Amino acid sequence: MKKLINEKEHFLGDMLDGLKFHDERVEVIEGTVVVRKDKKKEGAAIVSGGGSGHEPAHAGYVAEGMLDAAVCGEVFTSPTPDKVLAAIRHVDNGDGVLLVIKNYAGDVMNFEMAQEMAESEGHKVQSVIVRDDVTIENEEQRRGVAGTVLVHKYAGYLASQNAPLDQIKEKVEKMMESLYSVGMAVQPCMVPTTGEYGFELGEDEMEIGIGIHGEKGIYREKLASVNEIADRLLDELFKYTDSETLILMINGMGGTPDSELNIVTKYVMESLEKRNRKVSKLLVGDYMTALDMQGFSLTVADDDEELIKAINAPTESKHF
Amino acid sequence: MKKLINEKEHFLGDMLDGLKFHDERVEVIEGTVVVRKDKKKEGAAIVSGGGSGHEPAHAGYVAEGMLDAAVCGEVFTSPTPDKVLAAIRHVDNGDGVLLVIKNYAGDVMNFEMAQEMAESEGHKVQSVIVRDDVTIENEEQRRGVAGTVLVHKYAGYLASQNAPLDQIKEKVEKMMESLYSVGMAVQPCMVPTTGEYGFELGEDEMEIGIGIHGEKGIYREKLASVNEIADRLLDELFKYTDSETLILMINGMGGTPDSELNIVTKYVMESLEKRNRKVSKLLVGDYMTALDMQGFSLTVADDDEELIKAINAPTESKHF
Repeated sequence: MKKLINEKEHFLGDMLDGLKFHDERVEVIEGTVVVRKDKKKEGAAIVSGGGSGHEPAHAGYVAEGMLDAAVCGEVFTSPTPDKVLAAIRHVDNGDGVLLVIKNYAGDVMNFEMAQEMAESEGHKVQSVIVRDDVTIENEEQRRGVAGTVLVHKYAGYLASQNAPLDQIKEKVEKMMESLYSVGMAVQPCMVPTTGEYGFELGEDEMEIGIGIHGEKGIYREKLASVNEIADRLLDELFKYTDSETLILMINGMGGTPDSELNIVTKYVMESLEKRNRKVSKLLVGDYMTALDMQGFSLTVADDDEELIKAINAPTESKHF
Repeated sequence: MKKLINEKEHFLGDMLDGLKFHDERVEVIEGTVVVRKDKKKEGAAIVSGGGSGHEPAHAGYVAEGMLDAAVCGEVFTSPTPDKVLAAIRHVDNGDGVLLVIKNYAGDVMNFEMAQEMAESEGHKVQSVIVRDDVTIENEEQRRGVAGTVLVHKYAGYLASQNAPLDQIKEKVEKMMESLYSVGMAVQPCMVPTTGEYGFELGEDEMEIGIGIHGEKGIYREKLASVNEIADRLLDELFKYTDSETLILMINGMGGTPDSELNIVTKYVMESLEKRNRKVSKLLVGDYMTALDMQGFSLTVADDDEELIKAINAPTESKHF
């Protein structure tokens, strides 16, 4: 296995130790909970997290205007409820805490268990579950993928505007009603804790409908050129949305070079133009990754003035 | 070849078309020259560029506080003199132009030819040649690698402070006297225009002393754990510098996941501590890449108050 790591058992701890060296705004409590040093004095706090391997998500978004804490699990593994509880205790200043949970059985179970424990201690806690991945037909089973980062930014912005907790939850849930993502890969990721590739793929094959945990896609198809792939993914998204004007995030999966992400952008935008769809806000970058997977995902949300204001609002995170 | 591209002949044009969609601050003139829409009205202008494949370098640094223009060649291929000349003509507002050239025969020849042509048209042009890669013993032949991005930032900052052209050149040349880099790779890059890997590497091998054009390293060695690799690279650098306090850039080669770059950071910083070296400013990220190569480079410069001020100064580039 050719990974830039030391002992694989120390992957998470080593990564967080390294993060602290170059992001002096954060500290790590309880071993795996990344929090802001300049802890918010008032207003609702936003907490997210999940397995590691999605960097810069989630620890990279712990910053003014986004998250107050990120609870980090081992690679592709949910953090335990006690860590989530520790995060809630740390960030709650009396105005309550919103948990942003990606829709995976382990995450939902552990975050909700922590929520109950925190509530029994007197904390006011609300939670939202992100399930933006449209390639899974059963809506209840849809995975939370790159759209989660837009939820972080929106919730963080609302909190920075001193919106009360219940209103943040309400607005975020409304926004998530039009939040759809679909992803693809040309190369699997190598999972450093197992030394195994997420899947095997032939030289002329690609995966459509990937998740962010190294798993294979819903569809295995013949490798196509990027304009065809752009069309293919947009066809999936437009089964769900008929909005003429969209907010669009083009997300690299971690190992995709910047140059290719720019080329993807060209063809996605041209395909949208042919469909007479407008993009009111475009984001391109590595926001929610699967280690070194090569591929990209598209996330759309309905055009919305406040959401765009939230996206454009300053944050100290250098990753958004 | 599994690359997210359309026709490989259109790689550069497609990439720049895509860039324009999401970086609304720039425009492209003469097909391959990226310039700022809000062109500087006074003060020296900074121009760099070179072959593509190093994204976000160089086009991603065309922004207030960094570059005024990036002249983009095909993948790993120098841009032609007429394009460099077009950039000089466009950005020069009468206060002159500094060319930041990486030390490759093609780049040096074509940029210097453009300089002569521009001077004969009455433009005041100065140039600096970056040769920070210490793994090549002959100083004249040393390649310009990730340290070039620090030169961009320093020169851009000095220009923003209205320093005259000659003074910028002088200060940058002084700064480059202590600018040293060394890089390594565990996986080669795949060059999209040829469909070939830059080199082949066994499962238990790594390359030390790589360049940024997909070429193999100066040394092929047995794969080691990241703490050993950190020591190995720092040993190389400390053949050249004996400064106790350093500015340090840890640069991902394009395909290296964020998580591993953080782990690298931990062990590099620990190794420096053991050597009683201090880091006064630390930068970690993908600054100067070789497509999807997996590996990293270390760049150091002597501690300097003005250089740190320059690094910390705001820029509209989202990549620095």
